[in-house]
Amino acid sequence: MAEMPAKAKTCVGCHGADGNSLVPNFPKLAGQHAAYLEKSLKDYRDGFRHDATMKSFAKGLSDAEIKDLAAYFSAQPAK
Amino acid sequence: MAEMPAKAKTCVGCHGADGNSLVPNFPKLAGQHAAYLEKSLKDYRDGFRHDATMKSFAKGLSDAEIKDLAAYFSAQPAK
Repeated sequence: MAEMPAKAKTCVGCHGADGNSLVPNFPKLAGQHAAYLEKSLKDYRDGFRHDATMKSFAKGLSDAEIKDLAAYFSAQPAK
Repeated sequence: MAEMPAKAKTCVGCHGADGNSLVPNFPKLAGQHAAYLEKSLKDYRDGFRHDATMKSFAKGLSDAEIKDLAAYFSAQPAK
């Protein structure tokens, strides 16, 4: 399994240590399709999906960083 | 476990029979937090999240139907 990308430290505050969010309003990322996670982050970054917190985080991400984050959380087992 | 809501028949075409989508671009719904699924459907319906297919489906849903759909898919085991 891939190592946790450095920027994933920001994600886990809301989405749970392994992407298994315990907070009902924040989606679980673990086991989700990487392509969907990648699209979500790009949509937040590029203004096609709206959430102040996610936009603030995603605007600093490159395509390569988004790909790594999506691959990492997709590879975590869903609980 | 709750019975499948009638309108869930539309969801499963893309999101998989039990919400375990096999299509990388379409998110898995199984095991996702109900509150998040509910917010997603309302955001599509009410124009805060944009996807032509989802908007077309969600615009015909009442709050109660959305609640039932979210509860149903949230209760399915993630695979």
